Amino acid sequence: MSLFAGIDEVTDPDVLASLSHDEAEWAPVGRAVAAVRPRSTEEVARIVAGCAERGLSVVPRGAGTGLSGGANAVDGCVIVDLSKMTAILEVDADNMICVVQAGVVNNDLKAAVAKHGLWYPPDPASSPWSTIGGNVATNAGGLCCLKYGVTRDYVLGLTAVVGGPAGDYGTVARLGRRTTKGVSGYDLTSLFVGAEGTLGVVTDVTLKLRPARKEPPRTVVGAFGSVVSAGEAVAETTRQGLLPAALELLDRATLQAVEEWKHLGLSADAEALLLAQIDTPGAAGAEEAAAVAGAFTRAGALWAEQSTDEVEAEQLFAARRLAYPAMERLGPVLTEDVCVPRSAVPGMLAAIEEIGARHQVIIATIAHAGDGNLHPLIITPAGDDAARVAAQAAFSEILEKAIAAGGTVTGEHGVGLLKRAGMRQELSPAVLAMQSAVKRTLDPLNLFNPGKVVGEP
Amino acid sequence: MSLFAGIDEVTDPDVLASLSHDEAEWAPVGRAVAAVRPRSTEEVARIVAGCAERGLSVVPRGAGTGLSGGANAVDGCVIVDLSKMTAILEVDADNMICVVQAGVVNNDLKAAVAKHGLWYPPDPASSPWSTIGGNVATNAGGLCCLKYGVTRDYVLGLTAVVGGPAGDYGTVARLGRRTTKGVSGYDLTSLFVGAEGTLGVVTDVTLKLRPARKEPPRTVVGAFGSVVSAGEAVAETTRQGLLPAALELLDRATLQAVEEWKHLGLSADAEALLLAQIDTPGAAGAEEAAAVAGAFTRAGALWAEQSTDEVEAEQLFAARRLAYPAMERLGPVLTEDVCVPRSAVPGMLAAIEEIGARHQVIIATIAHAGDGNLHPLIITPAGDDAARVAAQAAFSEILEKAIAAGGTVTGEHGVGLLKRAGMRQELSPAVLAMQSAVKRTLDPLNLFNPGKVVGEP
Repeated sequence: MSLFAGIDEVTDPDVLASLSHDEAEWAPVGRAVAAVRPRSTEEVARIVAGCAERGLSVVPRGAGTGLSGGANAVDGCVIVDLSKMTAILEVDADNMICVVQAGVVNNDLKAAVAKHGLWYPPDPASSPWSTIGGNVATNAGGLCCLKYGVTRDYVLGLTAVVGGPAGDYGTVARLGRRTTKGVSGYDLTSLFVGAEGTLGVVTDVTLKLRPARKEPPRTVVGAFGSVVSAGEAVAETTRQGLLPAALELLDRATLQAVEEWKHLGLSADAEALLLAQIDTPGAAGAEEAAAVAGAFTRAGALWAEQSTDEVEAEQLFAARRLAYPAMERLGPVLTEDVCVPRSAVPGMLAAIEEIGARHQVIIATIAHAGDGNLHPLIITPAGDDAARVAAQAAFSEILEKAIAAGGTVTGEHGVGLLKRAGMRQELSPAVLAMQSAVKRTLDPLNLFNPGKVVGEP
Repeated sequence: MSLFAGIDEVTDPDVLASLSHDEAEWAPVGRAVAAVRPRSTEEVARIVAGCAERGLSVVPRGAGTGLSGGANAVDGCVIVDLSKMTAILEVDADNMICVVQAGVVNNDLKAAVAKHGLWYPPDPASSPWSTIGGNVATNAGGLCCLKYGVTRDYVLGLTAVVGGPAGDYGTVARLGRRTTKGVSGYDLTSLFVGAEGTLGVVTDVTLKLRPARKEPPRTVVGAFGSVVSAGEAVAETTRQGLLPAALELLDRATLQAVEEWKHLGLSADAEALLLAQIDTPGAAGAEEAAAVAGAFTRAGALWAEQSTDEVEAEQLFAARRLAYPAMERLGPVLTEDVCVPRSAVPGMLAAIEEIGARHQVIIATIAHAGDGNLHPLIITPAGDDAARVAAQAAFSEILEKAIAAGGTVTGEHGVGLLKRAGMRQELSPAVLAMQSAVKRTLDPLNLFNPGKVVGEP
């Protein structure tokens, strides 16, 4: 018997298990009652209404590439797998916007709008797999948000299946607008972006697009004798008012892991590499690239140069994107996502090294360094309980250090389950109370993804 | 006797009257009990706590340049005039951010950060007078938001004096962050931006800055035989993927009114002018300017050329900024603020002409045309009641047309009092119920600027 007439339902226990979690290591996973695969907003509305009637929680998910447990099942929930909602409903090239269903994969969206000479900038490393709905749920960032902003900066409007004050659970609410500007009422669209499905289920999204870039970007590579001196170069680049499209850091451990896996021919001849991508066109771009290389050199780079080999440059960025799966091959990876002011990057990188050494855990660091968004990856041998305890202690200390440096516990991965305690350290009781009040008033039954974000740890 | 010990209070009836309204024509103005001029967040907190105890509404205001009545007094309120809170608390050049009190004037902020080689882009036409707090309250736009975004895009965090779930009224809540990215909990910062003081009183703001532009921008001017053909040029420019820093429209009535007042030497030899500002540096900027001029020509411009005279170019933009006060000299001005998809700009401009002719009202149109944000200014002779009725009918019809074109009733001025009915036409009952629920839960006493935005018309 299916729960919802005419809607695809997963009952196979193995498939249900695989749909019950995301990529977050050591986040608790509950037992779902079922997983459903709707194809339309109307089907999602029926699912939510039915769940409300039966008192079943609703846990939405996209591709499950999240790193904070935001898509993990809770006991007795229905998982709403939106990955079959892959329609690109509209590309309005005249107005540089598109409307897509939540299950469209980020790279598929990019390809679809590229045919119209347009570009959707947000590019989380998961872009070959992650869905726009998931990107919206976590307000995903990526490499080029240094210059071009994060997912929230591109979401003009969205359709969500909601409950609470909007009417019965299962009500379809169209938030936001199609225009470039608009201040008609409170910005509920921004509230839903990053809410990880705790306020309703987002079924389609209206996105702002940009004109496609006309020239291939330039790449500047800098090699450093320590991650801390690479951090100094990041601070110096910002101080000079330089705004590359991307400014990424990879440490030696990361480069080695990628090379061992993929044999891209990378040489890890330094403790850290910085990769800057500059997409300003023409001579101004050449000047900007030279200025970035100059900032790297002044900060103590072993060498810094503009890559003249496009293939090599692309391989370096490919290495950056492959870093996470490459490290996962070595054992369970606990992924940090702290974001600190850019001037605090060197100090934060030094603190991470110190914490890793003291707890005797292996930490490989990749970073959207230009944003101050650091992803130390804590790797533990599988099945080693002592290592796991040490890793979790290091994880907590890194969060504390980031807060003390004026930063946040999550730059782009979301609170989910893993950052709930950290968020409670970061935000004041007054702000936490406001957060919870918003959740209660928009979801009085606590039906939508309960326990996540503002849920009690 | 003063209401709040040690806090400046205005009792002079004339000054109180002048602090009781903004620049919105024909918006209702209530009778305030008093106006206070706090100098710190702590003083605002005492005011809000005192008002809650005594059951007095709190109406915050900056410079009073708003155009929707958002800062108008309501009966029995205390006006909280934040214009004395003018401290620039911090300019952190290394991280390209600043922290300023709510009363800092937009242009003063621009000047302060320019000393550090930085730039705060949002530039409402009111920037010589309007405050950052007011800009935040309405999510102000301006000329260069076409390329650089609106106020919300620059607000990383803010301090607000709140009530409700955060604790007693008078609680100080620090929302948001100092980092470029962050997803720790719901985006309450974005919720407060554009909320017009209905959720709490914003006392200071943490703003993202950009590096200062290094070259003077280029200006392309196009003259058109009708506002509709100017609108076609806007649509064509967008269609070509061109993104000037600004793309402004002025019609003949506006140019004449400015010239009669300021004698800038403008010649109104066309029915409409388009002014494009291009700030891409170097040769790429020259190409972009040529492409914009080409788009104007293809759309039927009488002439289109890059201005080679910087003084002339600056005067054209000055005319744009002076348009509103110039029209006000001719009589009460009812200012529209609709925003439509850019492809709908020509049709919307034609509809505005038709509506003006049918109601026999004078409508001068200025527009942030590149954003689709149109400001038809409806001018009535002072004291002419029939003209006023006709103007209000035209105003309502323009709102209806904008909604029908897929647009919004307010692009950047806010709902205030004047757009409450329009907002109710634009948003669905479900969305309105969510808006009201958010207001109720964050301000259960309905103390903050009651009746505005989601308040009942």
